[in-house]
Amino acid sequence: MILTVTPNPALDLTWRIDRLVPGATHRADAGAVRAGGKGLNVARVAHAQGASVLAVSTAGGRSGIELAAELATSGVPHRLVEVVGATRQSIALVDESLGDTTIVNERGVNPSDPEWAALLGEVVDALPGAKVLVVSGSLPPGAPQTLLPLLIGTARDAGVPVIVDTSGPAMLQAADAGASVLKPNAAELVEATGIADPIDGARSLIARGAELVLLSLGADGMLAVTGSETLHARLDAPLSGNPTGAGDAGVAACAVLYADGVRDPETLLRRATAWSAAAVLMPLAGEISDDWVALEERLVVAPFPRTVREDPL
Amino acid sequence: MILTVTPNPALDLTWRIDRLVPGATHRADAGAVRAGGKGLNVARVAHAQGASVLAVSTAGGRSGIELAAELATSGVPHRLVEVVGATRQSIALVDESLGDTTIVNERGVNPSDPEWAALLGEVVDALPGAKVLVVSGSLPPGAPQTLLPLLIGTARDAGVPVIVDTSGPAMLQAADAGASVLKPNAAELVEATGIADPIDGARSLIARGAELVLLSLGADGMLAVTGSETLHARLDAPLSGNPTGAGDAGVAACAVLYADGVRDPETLLRRATAWSAAAVLMPLAGEISDDWVALEERLVVAPFPRTVREDPL
Repeated sequence: MILTVTPNPALDLTWRIDRLVPGATHRADAGAVRAGGKGLNVARVAHAQGASVLAVSTAGGRSGIELAAELATSGVPHRLVEVVGATRQSIALVDESLGDTTIVNERGVNPSDPEWAALLGEVVDALPGAKVLVVSGSLPPGAPQTLLPLLIGTARDAGVPVIVDTSGPAMLQAADAGASVLKPNAAELVEATGIADPIDGARSLIARGAELVLLSLGADGMLAVTGSETLHARLDAPLSGNPTGAGDAGVAACAVLYADGVRDPETLLRRATAWSAAAVLMPLAGEISDDWVALEERLVVAPFPRTVREDPL
Repeated sequence: MILTVTPNPALDLTWRIDRLVPGATHRADAGAVRAGGKGLNVARVAHAQGASVLAVSTAGGRSGIELAAELATSGVPHRLVEVVGATRQSIALVDESLGDTTIVNERGVNPSDPEWAALLGEVVDALPGAKVLVVSGSLPPGAPQTLLPLLIGTARDAGVPVIVDTSGPAMLQAADAGASVLKPNAAELVEATGIADPIDGARSLIARGAELVLLSLGADGMLAVTGSETLHARLDAPLSGNPTGAGDAGVAACAVLYADGVRDPETLLRRATAWSAAAVLMPLAGEISDDWVALEERLVVAPFPRTVREDPL
């Protein structure tokens, strides 16, 4: 079973409008409401692809009731710790003319220490059945500094490898605490490590203890950085679509293979890149297209930096 | 008692962000959630100014539960007809750099005929205690053509005058059905009547049967058009602030005076203009500043078109 933890879940509201004009009033049909947050997106994708998952998170206030109801409808197995603070909301305005999406994310309310303890308790209860733990997304402002090291340490003590997708100082904490895989994008990596070259930044996370850094590059695909090699995977031609949730789909791919005992960086990189690309083809985060198999076949994988110029034919 | 009807209520969500950039991701503190829709804003303002009010509307789905809870907290007396369709949501993004507000309004779900009948039933029950009926805001797409004439006719049969603030064909229907006061803005008036000059448009509503048209002009104040005169009220200097809900505050002023038996157009115009201006000073719709008394004293009121050039000193 893949155990996912989402420390800062969100009720995601999505509206489609003709054209977003700042300062103007727009009319829209009823928006879509979804239980969101990166860890829940990872759980959705893995569940839809047939993996056994358990999504652990929190829910509070009326938005939390709505999140719980939507999650129940989704069929993704989950445990939600009831918290006093209202679950944050996130809104996405999809501009149907330009195709781009404007997002506002509330920062979220920090649970109390007993509420965090209850979340840790759910994780401890579930770890005996887990093959991998995924911790994904931001932490609410004011979250205890000890939270991420505690989660990772608890999983490692139980012999369960940990995949972390977060940003800022928490990324360094995760590497120090023994996360096996980290999945930053280039901007997050530069910001967290303070190192201008993302590949050097990824190597610094390996030096801190991570086994593998999956560095997502948007339309340029993904890099796998380990202690001994760096591989680059990208599609043979760019895709257009909605990149929201592409990183979460990559984490889901990595988690599914990890749960099956796969550790080969190239296999992990290929599947993560293919599922990320397949997420771009879907309108909402937390879903991937069935075309992922064909996309994986279209991938070009090579050592990075490429030492031989590619033949343009 | 002032009886307000809001046929298409909304759960209003307001976020403040540094600067709205289309296509970008923004972080925000928790947004404000309010029971909204023009009629509820009218009831809020009148209630806060000490008037006796009853707000009638609908509520459905989880957003309806949230609307009902917020309305209960507000202390405004109300009756909400439970409907199956979810109450629409409206989002406002306040750009703190530029000071302007970007709004997305869901169109709303049309209640069933029995649900509309229940709304009419609440109005019929409340009319014996009402001094004035206010019908404010849009109708959901597909609402029965007969709804507005029925509401207005029922009130008039009970001897209760009716103030209507709506747009499109419903504005003409309201005038035909015997609404005493209509409060369009210039763009709504031109669109509903098809007459390019707003004052000619207002006169066409008087010809259809209305006693008074309060024509809001934004920063230029307000016009009162009757069968015999046109008066213009405006502040001696412009205000800056949030114009959302300014029209509703003007309707509330008119309703409070109507409930007290006032019919003098100049008195109605002065109070409506002052309360509209006092709403601009407040961050959320449905509130007016206590400075309205001073603002009313600052008003310049004159026949329109002004026949004597104003002395620039």
